[in-house]
Amino acid sequence: MSEINASVITIGDELLIGQTIDTNSAFIGQELNKAGIWVKRRVAVGDVYSDIWNALDEEKKYSRLIIITGGLGPTADDITKPLLCDYFNTRLVRNETVLAHIHHLFVNVYKRKVALSEANIRQADLPESCTVLHNEHGSAAGMWFETENRNGEKVIVISMPGVPYEMKKILVNEALPRITAYFGGDIVIHKVLSTFGMGESMVAEKLATLESQLPSYIKLAYLPGYGMVKLRLTGRGNDRIQLEEEMSRFYQQLKAPLKHITIAENDDTLEMIIGQLLQKQQKKMATAESCTGGYIAHLITSLPKSSSHFNGSAVTYNNKAKENILGVNHETLETQGAVSEETAIQMVAGALERFDADYALATTGIMGPASDNDEKPVGTVWIAAGNRQHIVTKQLNLGYDRQRNIQSTALQALNLLRKFVIDQGGKE
Amino acid sequence: MSEINASVITIGDELLIGQTIDTNSAFIGQELNKAGIWVKRRVAVGDVYSDIWNALDEEKKYSRLIIITGGLGPTADDITKPLLCDYFNTRLVRNETVLAHIHHLFVNVYKRKVALSEANIRQADLPESCTVLHNEHGSAAGMWFETENRNGEKVIVISMPGVPYEMKKILVNEALPRITAYFGGDIVIHKVLSTFGMGESMVAEKLATLESQLPSYIKLAYLPGYGMVKLRLTGRGNDRIQLEEEMSRFYQQLKAPLKHITIAENDDTLEMIIGQLLQKQQKKMATAESCTGGYIAHLITSLPKSSSHFNGSAVTYNNKAKENILGVNHETLETQGAVSEETAIQMVAGALERFDADYALATTGIMGPASDNDEKPVGTVWIAAGNRQHIVTKQLNLGYDRQRNIQSTALQALNLLRKFVIDQGGKE
Repeated sequence: MSEINASVITIGDELLIGQTIDTNSAFIGQELNKAGIWVKRRVAVGDVYSDIWNALDEEKKYSRLIIITGGLGPTADDITKPLLCDYFNTRLVRNETVLAHIHHLFVNVYKRKVALSEANIRQADLPESCTVLHNEHGSAAGMWFETENRNGEKVIVISMPGVPYEMKKILVNEALPRITAYFGGDIVIHKVLSTFGMGESMVAEKLATLESQLPSYIKLAYLPGYGMVKLRLTGRGNDRIQLEEEMSRFYQQLKAPLKHITIAENDDTLEMIIGQLLQKQQKKMATAESCTGGYIAHLITSLPKSSSHFNGSAVTYNNKAKENILGVNHETLETQGAVSEETAIQMVAGALERFDADYALATTGIMGPASDNDEKPVGTVWIAAGNRQHIVTKQLNLGYDRQRNIQSTALQALNLLRKFVIDQGGKE
Repeated sequence: MSEINASVITIGDELLIGQTIDTNSAFIGQELNKAGIWVKRRVAVGDVYSDIWNALDEEKKYSRLIIITGGLGPTADDITKPLLCDYFNTRLVRNETVLAHIHHLFVNVYKRKVALSEANIRQADLPESCTVLHNEHGSAAGMWFETENRNGEKVIVISMPGVPYEMKKILVNEALPRITAYFGGDIVIHKVLSTFGMGESMVAEKLATLESQLPSYIKLAYLPGYGMVKLRLTGRGNDRIQLEEEMSRFYQQLKAPLKHITIAENDDTLEMIIGQLLQKQQKKMATAESCTGGYIAHLITSLPKSSSHFNGSAVTYNNKAKENILGVNHETLETQGAVSEETAIQMVAGALERFDADYALATTGIMGPASDNDEKPVGTVWIAAGNRQHIVTKQLNLGYDRQRNIQSTALQALNLLRKFVIDQGGKE
């Protein structure tokens, strides 16, 4: 089957005024991409009849698969269902299976004591011409419509509710198997390389020759952020073996000049990589955070199962806490200050001991926007990482943006620890 | 001036395959909305010349303001700049001011020791016909183009880099003042009420009468998230005094039925509100976090000047750390478990003492997706807040989504502390 493009239409005023960040589209993009379908366009429109209609008309020009999310709730601003009836020239009929499912949800899952409201019951009214996609977790069913574009080619339109966990189940369990069966599709292969410590433009210079050699069906993309640059090769084709062979060759050429800054041959974050290293070494870590204020601990504990390699963090936001909790020397703080190499070293030592950890990292610095320290400017940061035998340190000089400084410091400290843990692993 | 619609075009394959979640569009939507401009459509397209071109053509049909983000980096997958030259029938010319700024960034901010690369220098090449929008934090300048739609109306196209903190500065400092001056526009007044602890649909029921009475030029929006529901009234008009009077009247009607769940008569977050309360009482706080893993400390320390009321956090991710750092009783952990009311209480007591704080909060729970605790299911959480005289607790029963559980627990714990601090303030 030839290349199938998809469009994603997201409905809801809350997206346009920026109240909600659209995470559904990212999920849909990932899943379709894995299935070999390229998302060509994503469009968000408000709860306005003509805007939704126009979006459908337009995306039919670009794509043979159109996925709509949102606009199916029980409240008055949801106009998608009547619109789909008009658009596909059909009418609402009550679906008894869906009605029974809504009953089941309200009684057994939501444990509601009151009878279904009219609005709840109306959710079982669905366009006659659609195939119903079962919504395991909610009362708004998914819908599958078949139509044609101007060239007489078949176009599939799928409508799903916008609640993320409901949408995800419908997409994966109900829609994708039907999509794959219907369209077949190209093979798509991604290869990602994650680097840390070199700017996007310098990385690009190193890859200039490679880029000029890439065929049209293999693309190279740069994804920069806070010291990290991720590189992604995406290839499309219909012969898997040939494409894989070619992708591997280009991936080798990509890796070679970036060897010294590569942190992963995939999309893993620094906290994931450290987690894997510690699991392998069967070691535990802790953090001592002043200027990052718990952000590093938050990154680490956002991962499931992090408790198997992370013992905890001391967020010591004043000198007294650094002394009491981490045992930093009072005199060190007096003479060298909280933002100093020696304080960072003692914070690592304290975290190792107090959390009974094998490795620890520490951060101390002035994040801004203002400094209340006469001698040290905003952006002055010391980070340290180590174990009971050895501690390494690094000074950073950052800018004035507090959020950015917190993020940059966290990633720099994680990278310092990553390198330290790898070195130690090599010694054993 | 009549109503101006805007379209936001986001460029980048990484958005379409779901590698990046689009947070820029939300920010742009919020800022334009505040300025009285309605975002009608948001479109994401890949790094493909014809797709970007078509998107520009199409959005010109809908909107008189088109904001493009992304596609301006120094690397070869960024094709936006040449495309804009073709689209607006102009050519690239070197801008010496921008070149000087790039020099400044590399020498003084990034502290690079090497000379500018060709790619860096080329970032100073900009379309001749555009007005350059200064990018304080980066080397890719913003661009402002004036064109016309088919009806002969002026259309503004603004292109900005996709790096969030660069884009935000350009939008707020450079683009928005020009947009407001260019289109003029109505007076726009916002009034926000932040509530916590009641679901969106129940809040909506309480506001049904008010909603039905609102004139067409005053809109009510709901912004729900993790237990919080923010309500925003937006009024548009040309007589400021009259509009303010009317807005105040509706805002009173909005507040009355929600008095018991109101946390702020503005857009402040819980951590901001607690910061203000503590500043007023001249008191300090600390946190003891198990299941939230430092996220609460991160929220608090993301605010500038938080060191004046926040002493620190003990992120105790195993039992030993709870004992060693916070002094939680070994027997309590053995008999009642780490996820128990008594442990949460002892964590608060430990944090008060170890961080020499006036108030503390604690969280302990099972965040999922899996539980390694036979007796307690995922989503079981105890939170506590208090001072040396008194500690209050609350049990939560959450779902299976780890990220969501961390966020919900953090907000619930902050709200518990907020109420406690207000009660104590009243006693003094």
